[in-house]
Parts: sequence; structure tokens; C-alpha cells
Amino acid sequence: MNIENEVPEAHERVKSHIRETYLEKSVFYSEKGDANVYLKCENLQHTGSFKVRGALNKILSLSDKELERGVITASTGNHGAAVAFALRQIGAKGTVFVSPKASASKIEAIKRLGAEVREYGDDPIEAENFARKYAVENGLVYVPPYNDIKIIGGQGTIGFEIERQLDKIDVVFVSVGGGGLIAGIGGYLKSIDPEIKIIGCSPENSNVMHQSIEMGKLVGDLPSLPTLSDGTAGGIENDSITFELCQRFVDEWVTVSEDEIAKNLLEFTDTHHQLIEGSAAVAIASYLKTKEKYTNKNVVIVLCGANIGIQTLKEIF
Amino acid sequence: MNIENEVPEAHERVKSHIRETYLEKSVFYSEKGDANVYLKCENLQHTGSFKVRGALNKILSLSDKELERGVITASTGNHGAAVAFALRQIGAKGTVFVSPKASASKIEAIKRLGAEVREYGDDPIEAENFARKYAVENGLVYVPPYNDIKIIGGQGTIGFEIERQLDKIDVVFVSVGGGGLIAGIGGYLKSIDPEIKIIGCSPENSNVMHQSIEMGKLVGDLPSLPTLSDGTAGGIENDSITFELCQRFVDEWVTVSEDEIAKNLLEFTDTHHQLIEGSAAVAIASYLKTKEKYTNKNVVIVLCGANIGIQTLKEIF
Repeated sequence: MNIENEVPEAHERVKSHIRETYLEKSVFYSEKGDANVYLKCENLQHTGSFKVRGALNKILSLSDKELERGVITASTGNHGAAVAFALRQIGAKGTVFVSPKASASKIEAIKRLGAEVREYGDDPIEAENFARKYAVENGLVYVPPYNDIKIIGGQGTIGFEIERQLDKIDVVFVSVGGGGLIAGIGGYLKSIDPEIKIIGCSPENSNVMHQSIEMGKLVGDLPSLPTLSDGTAGGIENDSITFELCQRFVDEWVTVSEDEIAKNLLEFTDTHHQLIEGSAAVAIASYLKTKEKYTNKNVVIVLCGANIGIQTLKEIF
Repeated sequence: MNIENEVPEAHERVKSHIRETYLEKSVFYSEKGDANVYLKCENLQHTGSFKVRGALNKILSLSDKELERGVITASTGNHGAAVAFALRQIGAKGTVFVSPKASASKIEAIKRLGAEVREYGDDPIEAENFARKYAVENGLVYVPPYNDIKIIGGQGTIGFEIERQLDKIDVVFVSVGGGGLIAGIGGYLKSIDPEIKIIGCSPENSNVMHQSIEMGKLVGDLPSLPTLSDGTAGGIENDSITFELCQRFVDEWVTVSEDEIAKNLLEFTDTHHQLIEGSAAVAIASYLKTKEKYTNKNVVIVLCGANIGIQTLKEIF
């Protein structure tokens, strides 16, 4: 696996389909942290999440035959919307499996993007297991959310953009679920400048990659509690290639409480007038918790997504 | 006054200081309206509002002597933040007068942008009247919010961008307060293609320009009721050059209720995962109210700003 080559290739594949999102200097956080704080606004990416980068890179890397047969995935979250968007962008076909128990508005959003949606099972895991089996039995490509070098390479295009948008990068804060985002960004930026610090950010309540790194082996089914950071929550596939990449590329880990996530999500909304989801607030909270280490540095915080429900916002505000 | 020349000149002056904001095709509104609906995302402009375009164009048009003496304005809203941002961008000096009774968070936001802030009077009108008098007495330039050809030309750069971003424009929905935004966009786009329809959008509760147009003369002090669209609310200067421009360039007017504004602000947030302020929801609501007229057309809705308070969001959600 060679992330430093994967990422520029991914950039060429996906650049006409995605947004080069703003890298916004935040006056508010720069003052608060006594540093130059930049926000990488993937909350403004198509579908409201960085996930379109990986999904597009994966799907655009398939052979004509694979594309003709159609691809499969399972997700009602950002990954499902990303695959649906990617398919529509390139006029390819595929099926997103969802559990009918998922929120109707999320299923609607995926259907609006034009993907075929099939309902199966009593929860997301059942839908995913069925979808994987269906793909194998029918010889179709399953598009996974993070355990795939093309997915990781696609997410890494964020690092490619940051490197062009900012002359000198000292440290980058990235939220971690399955680890695809931080593996791609970290792997690429370390290949450009090994001095750039990559900080993994997770909620205390669901922190499988960080705990696995501390144990020295991936234990994907470590338990999780509910978290506002639903985009990073839950277990990890036990063979995930992201584990070794996180071992290599992540310099430090920070965990934050649910209170810190909520407080920072509210403060960000009040001062920056954009929406972010809980997983993006995890990265902000992680920076502010450790800001004393980065005085006068050029700090980048990746705002990974915007997809938060109105009900959750009501509870936070 | 020659808007079609003012706007390209303004574009050259301001382009390195502002964002060319996204023109986003909305799948949701396109389906809902059976049309191609594009959102011009000035909610993502620096300071969260289009107002930086006009403020920058005005300030960059001043002579060195005028700039050395410093400029004056009065506003705790989007215009005040825009002038403060513009001054910081070009390293010029100036003073924003505010009423100390204004919300502390809005005053803080302007101070964070680095402008000198002076407090005066018991309400915004007192602060504004004092600021204008102060400017005259000290030979300083007052930067007005809309009644100025350079301000109007700056706002018109939105039209310049849309024209480059979309091959064929049929109709543009623009919220109207003092009328600077619609005069600039409408004046420029009509000069390119007189067939483009320009629709003025206002809340029923505060609708001074539309009422004045119907009466055939500008009656700037017509009464207003409170509205969620605080960005467009209130009276208009009686000599405003925007009146004649609105007479020339606005094809139709739509008014919407407070319920329609709130409902559409909520629906937009829930489906697009960005923040907008009430005045932007006025333009969305006005389109949806009249969508039958624009089946299969290329419709542009200008999302003029994002600056909405958490308390207001709580009430709407």
C-alpha cells in the first residue's frame, strides 16, 4: 500500500466531481488558541460529508465490466449518500441496502440521489451482512466505508487540497471512526513532510481505533456507548487495513466527552454560522482541549461533515 | 448610473478578497418545483453575508486621502461586519458605531474582525444618526448600506458570478430590504439578457420597497412589523437610488408570511445541512409559493446570508 501515490491518482479521478472545499481561517479559534487556525470545510462537500471522495475514487477505479454489473453497499449514513451521489455523478448503477428501521428522512435523502434502495433486516448490521452476501453471490463489487485502499486514497485528497491551500502545515486534527479519513490525510501529508503532526480525535464513548492502537492490536468489537458523534461511532472490521496505517501515521490521540462535543458544536454554530455534525465537533473539541501545545502554529481542523438532525440540534441548543 | 459597467469593474476590485460562492443545484427543490433549481450560496460568503461585496467595492473605490482619514459606518448587523471585514482585508482603518443596547455577541463579532467599535445612543437609529453627523463634521466617508452606486455595483457581482456559473438563467429570486442586492443583480443580468426575470421577495411584515413601488413613489418610513427576516426589515432612506432601479429591473414581487419563512428555513436546514438566515428563507419561500410559473425553468435562488441567532433557531426548530 502506497498512500502517497494513491492520493494524487485519486485527486485526478475525483476532482471534476467534488468540491475543492474552502480552507477558512477562523478568527474566532485563532484568537482562542493563540494560533493560526484553519477549518477544512468538508461540511460543505456534496452530500454534506467527505465520504463522496472515497466513494467516487473507488467506483471510478472499477472496470467497465464491474460497473456494468452494478455496485452494492449498505448504509443510511454519510457513506450511503456518498455512494448514491457517486453513482449519479458518473451515470452508473448500484444498490444501497438499508434497514427499514432507519430514519425515513435519511432513506429519502438517498432515494432522492437516484440510487436504487432496498430494505432488509431489523438493524443496519443485518442490512450490511445481507448486502455483502448478496454482492458475493451475484459477483458484484461491494463498496466498503473505509477498509479499502481506494476509499482511503479518495479521503486523502483532502490532504492534497490542504497542502495546496496552506503554505506551512504544523498540525492537523482529524476525527476517527473506521480510520479511513485520517489514514488518507495522514499518509499523504507525512509523505510530503514527516514533521506535520496528525492528531486522531474520538469521543470517549466510542473509541475503538484509539483503544486498539493502545492495545497494539485491532479489537474491532470493543463496546461503544451512544455518542453525538454518530459519524464515527461503532465497531471496526477486524481485518481493517486502516489499523496499521493509523499506527504509522497518527502522532497523538485525544478523546473528548459528550459535553465537550455538544458545547463546541453550539459555540461553532453561534460564531461561524455553518452547520456541522457531531463528528466534526469532536475535532474542534480535541484541538481546544490541547491548544496550549500549538501556540503560534498553523493548525488545521477537518470539519468532516454537516449531517445532523434537527432533533439533535434542538437538544444541543 | 450605469450598473452594467459598475458590476464588472466591481468584480475586478473585489474578486481577490471575496469568495466566488458555490452555485449549488438543489435536488430537493428541483424535484419539489419540477425545475432546475440552483442556490447561490452567499450564506457561505465571508462574514456570512453578501454585504462584504458592496462594502469592499465602496472602500476600494476611495481615494488614498479618504482612506487615510478612515471611514465611518453604523450597524451591528451584516453591514457592520462587512465593513469591518473589508477594512481588515485591505489594512485600512475605520470606525463602526453601534448602540450599546445591541446584542453583545454581534458587537463582539465586529470587534473580532478588528474594527474600532464605538458605542453611542439608545437604539440603532440614534447610533446611525450620530455616526453620519460625526462623519460630516470630521470630513470622513460614511459607508451606507445600500444607497450608493458602489455598494450596489459590489452586490451586483453576485449576478456576474451566476452568469458565468450557469449557461442559461430564466429567473432569479432575490430578497429585498433597502434594495441594493436586487438592484445590482437585476441591473447586471438584465444588461446581459433582458429576458431574465428578476423577482423581488419580501416578508409581509416589512415590505417597504414593494409597497413603495406599488404606490409609484418611495415612502421610506412606512411602518413595519417584526419579522424573522431581520436582514431586510425596516425603513428605507427617502432619497434612495435603489427605488428607481427596482422600478426598472424587478419584474414581479412576492410576499411571504412569517409562517412560510419559518417553515422553509426549517425544511432547508433539514434537507441541505447549511445555515441560512430569515432573509434567505424569504427567497426560498417566494419561489415555492410561485413555483407553478417556472416548471422546467432554470431557477436561481439567492441565499443572501447565514447570520441567525441560536435563540431564533431554537424557536423555529
